Amino acid sequence: MSVQEHKKEAPDYASCMVVTVSDTRNEESDKSGNLIKSLLKMHKHTVYEYRIVHDDQAWIKEATMYAASNDNIDIIIFNGGTGIAPRDVTIEALQPLFEKEIPGFGELFRMLSYTEDIGSGALLSRAVAGTIKKTAVFALPGSSGAVKLGMEKLILPEITHVVQQLRK
Amino acid sequence: MSVQEHKKEAPDYASCMVVTVSDTRNEESDKSGNLIKSLLKMHKHTVYEYRIVHDDQAWIKEATMYAASNDNIDIIIFNGGTGIAPRDVTIEALQPLFEKEIPGFGELFRMLSYTEDIGSGALLSRAVAGTIKKTAVFALPGSSGAVKLGMEKLILPEITHVVQQLRK
Amino acid sequence: MSVQEHKKEAPDYASCMVVTVSDTRNEESDKSGNLIKSLLKMHKHTVYEYRIVHDDQAWIKEATMYAASNDNIDIIIFNGGTGIAPRDVTIEALQPLFEKEIPGFGELFRMLSYTEDIGSGALLSRAVAGTIKKTAVFALPGSSGAVKLGMEKLILPEITHVVQQLRK
Amino acid sequence: MSVQEHKKEAPDYASCMVVTVSDTRNEESDKSGNLIKSLLKMHKHTVYEYRIVHDDQAWIKEATMYAASNDNIDIIIFNGGTGIAPRDVTIEALQPLFEKEIPGFGELFRMLSYTEDIGSGALLSRAVAGTIKKTAVFALPGSSGAVKLGMEKLILPEITHVVQQLRK
Amino acid sequence: MSVQEHKKEAPDYASCMVVTVSDTRNEESDKSGNLIKSLLKMHKHTVYEYRIVHDDQAWIKEATMYAASNDNIDIIIFNGGTGIAPRDVTIEALQPLFEKEIPGFGELFRMLSYTEDIGSGALLSRAVAGTIKKTAVFALPGSSGAVKLGMEKLILPEITHVVQQLRK
Amino acid sequence: MSVQEHKKEAPDYASCMVVTVSDTRNEESDKSGNLIKSLLKMHKHTVYEYRIVHDDQAWIKEATMYAASNDNIDIIIFNGGTGIAPRDVTIEALQPLFEKEIPGFGELFRMLSYTEDIGSGALLSRAVAGTIKKTAVFALPGSSGAVKLGMEKLILPEITHVVQQLRK
Repeated sequence: MSVQEHKKEAPDYASCMVVTVSDTRNEESDKSGNLIKSLLKMHKHTVYEYRIVHDDQAWIKEATMYAASNDNIDIIIFNGGTGIAPRDVTIEALQPLFEKEIPGFGELFRMLSYTEDIGSGALLSRAVAGTIKKTAVFALPGSSGAVKLGMEKLILPEITHVVQQLRK
Repeated sequence: MSVQEHKKEAPDYASCMVVTVSDTRNEESDKSGNLIKSLLKMHKHTVYEYRIVHDDQAWIKEATMYAASNDNIDIIIFNGGTGIAPRDVTIEALQPLFEKEIPGFGELFRMLSYTEDIGSGALLSRAVAGTIKKTAVFALPGSSGAVKLGMEKLILPEITHVVQQLRK
Repeated sequence: MSVQEHKKEAPDYASCMVVTVSDTRNEESDKSGNLIKSLLKMHKHTVYEYRIVHDDQAWIKEATMYAASNDNIDIIIFNGGTGIAPRDVTIEALQPLFEKEIPGFGELFRMLSYTEDIGSGALLSRAVAGTIKKTAVFALPGSSGAVKLGMEKLILPEITHVVQQLRK
Repeated sequence: MSVQEHKKEAPDYASCMVVTVSDTRNEESDKSGNLIKSLLKMHKHTVYEYRIVHDDQAWIKEATMYAASNDNIDIIIFNGGTGIAPRDVTIEALQPLFEKEIPGFGELFRMLSYTEDIGSGALLSRAVAGTIKKTAVFALPGSSGAVKLGMEKLILPEITHVVQQLRK
Repeated sequence: MSVQEHKKEAPDYASCMVVTVSDTRNEESDKSGNLIKSLLKMHKHTVYEYRIVHDDQAWIKEATMYAASNDNIDIIIFNGGTGIAPRDVTIEALQPLFEKEIPGFGELFRMLSYTEDIGSGALLSRAVAGTIKKTAVFALPGSSGAVKLGMEKLILPEITHVVQQLRK
Repeated sequence: MSVQEHKKEAPDYASCMVVTVSDTRNEESDKSGNLIKSLLKMHKHTVYEYRIVHDDQAWIKEATMYAASNDNIDIIIFNGGTGIAPRDVTIEALQPLFEKEIPGFGELFRMLSYTEDIGSGALLSRAVAGTIKKTAVFALPGSSGAVKLGMEKLILPEITHVVQQLRK
């Protein structure tokens, strides 16, 4: 089997970058970022890089383009900065960079938040996903409940399928 | 506690503007507009202003910018003009004005329409929500069933949370 | 009753164009395209035209504009080319042509895929619908399961309602 | 000649709204706003309304929609807030409201600034024009040199032609 | 020299489609359309097809996509429908279809209109150009003066250079 | 004078990043990139960083976001990749990142190309400029004639004015 053909198969594990968007959290207090890293490792995926960046469009875009330009990163997962308060700019930073949007990620996240979490907060949640070249980008709200839901119900079950599609 | 800090807390009640988009309804025959006003008052929110405007982008935009520029209005709720017929232009008028969209509002409205109302009409319904500065905008279909569903399941349970986020 | 008034009533049957987007299928092997045609005919709608086009934005746009400019076509239904792989361009070709989007179609399709099909693939599915003048456009993934779900749960139950709205 | 036909002819004079965008000027110190008003009156056009608003997107949009919704206003002329400093938001506020842009206004303004004013500042100038329904919107930089150039070379020579086109 | 290499060289002549956008002109009265055809033939380019279409977005888009999908057409030249009156929709129809815009075409057309034609009408003129796959699209105002200026000063001097770039 | 006030004054010199977009040039053969660096240094501006990147949207965006996120870089100047051939993607990469566009840069560049260079190539040139936070971005065609024109007539005369505006 040629290298080319091999790359088109579903990989067993993905190489991921984890980014927490917050003006206040540090590596110790970043419960949600650490939860994403633990869940990825528990499923044998690689955490290639981990950063905490400020609620600032330029830093969020810079991290995204770094991942999109790095052949060793398949997936970048953000948490935080997705609300509707004026300082929340993660969605505004990411959407202009997407070559393709994956609308089902945000929709299914909100549907599951509504039906499983008894509705609180689902209305205002603005999770998004999209692709830039061969890299997929996911953005989740910063609460550990949101992170747990998004990882366990949506990202972890589909992660190798996403990588396979982008390598086509 | 300073005024500044006080403003960041969740308010008990919101001050609202209600706008019916219709070429035919008047204040008496506007069943859906009156239903929104009653439901708001029943939950002790203020109806600061009420208007009926034509199916016309300029009047819909004008009402929205009036609310966004008025410190006494927290929320503006539209009903009518959300269908796919050529004269329906509420969505087309509002979306370019939004600084942030709240995609969950339209999605959860359609999901609930589908599951609770046995699906009829959910497919073509185009409810939207978004923010302009410190004002939130909601647009619902003009039928009284749609207005009841949107107010009781989505807007009324989250209204003070929305205002709190926008005052941050 | 004048012709004008008659046209505004809900029609009994719709006249449809079916387009399969694929680089490999032909008329015999196009299981999903043939399934759409059979389902339409079974419900007494007309299949006015059927085409297979390549995964190429220009051909997809050309077919859409042909339908939008043809008074004998009410609805155009695409299947294929909706994934996130680089060669999938159906969504990218159609969205800039829409005068109005029908967001509920993609959302409800993904919700039903998730709840009925045990979640596989719903996340990455990018079904869309919209209108151009008096023509409605629907785009479904190319698998026969996706086509069956989209036709039976969403398009067939609403098809005459859609046509009625667009003739207003 | 019917009223309808009469309206389609080129009018002799236009009815204008003048808006100065500034955080510091008042009616006395607003040299550029007063210059626009004088030049309009000198050519027998009507100054229907005059406002000074803050460098704030909501107030700029509100003034624009007020003019677009008012049948007595043909033209709205802004000055100020067109630079590239972070607080300059006139262009950002107006462009999403335009139904049609008039790209020649900004381009010819910059070409004339460059050739007549020996180049200073032409590069960074962001004058724009567009239409909303039957109202034309022009935005000029706030310096009195810019206002004089834009009014004398572009707006005053074309003002009745613009109004005639929009009444078609 | 292979066929592939040959195609990348500057061609001597281009194959063109000419489209007049008008609700009133016919093949005999279409002075501007006939002028474009004569000027192309005088420079030995081919007029592959000629159409008159209504002031209607769907017909304008359909003609454009037909040309973009036809390997025998290098260039499509529109005239008419570029003003700011409500019925003028050529620009609105074409811009969403462009993969790349060629901003210099409209700008230089307006600069030349202003300096050579003593300014009349340059301000409101909305000529545009762009590319779709390997086809270039130009849209000129419908007056014969505008057509003569655009053809002689901009399109004819650059036509083979444009085709060469798009074949790369 | 406080540091804050000092920063708002026009700086004497700017700190610049120079990026050449090319699949074939290297540091020695990059005549245009070296010309930009020489011209900057001749006017006592700093060349903080210099890169050659491929004709690839991700690398162009990554360099831009790196500069926008780096407090030591005031200006980033690209050359190359601005044509209309399919592989030219510099404009497509940069425009979605701009917070404000500076339309005068491209327009005046094309006007000067047309009048000074006897018109050749001005039509197809797609120079652009814009801002991201406190960083200005300029993109010039890759020929040394284009680079010389853009630097000497537009960028060098305005560079300290641009930096002053962005520090406000």
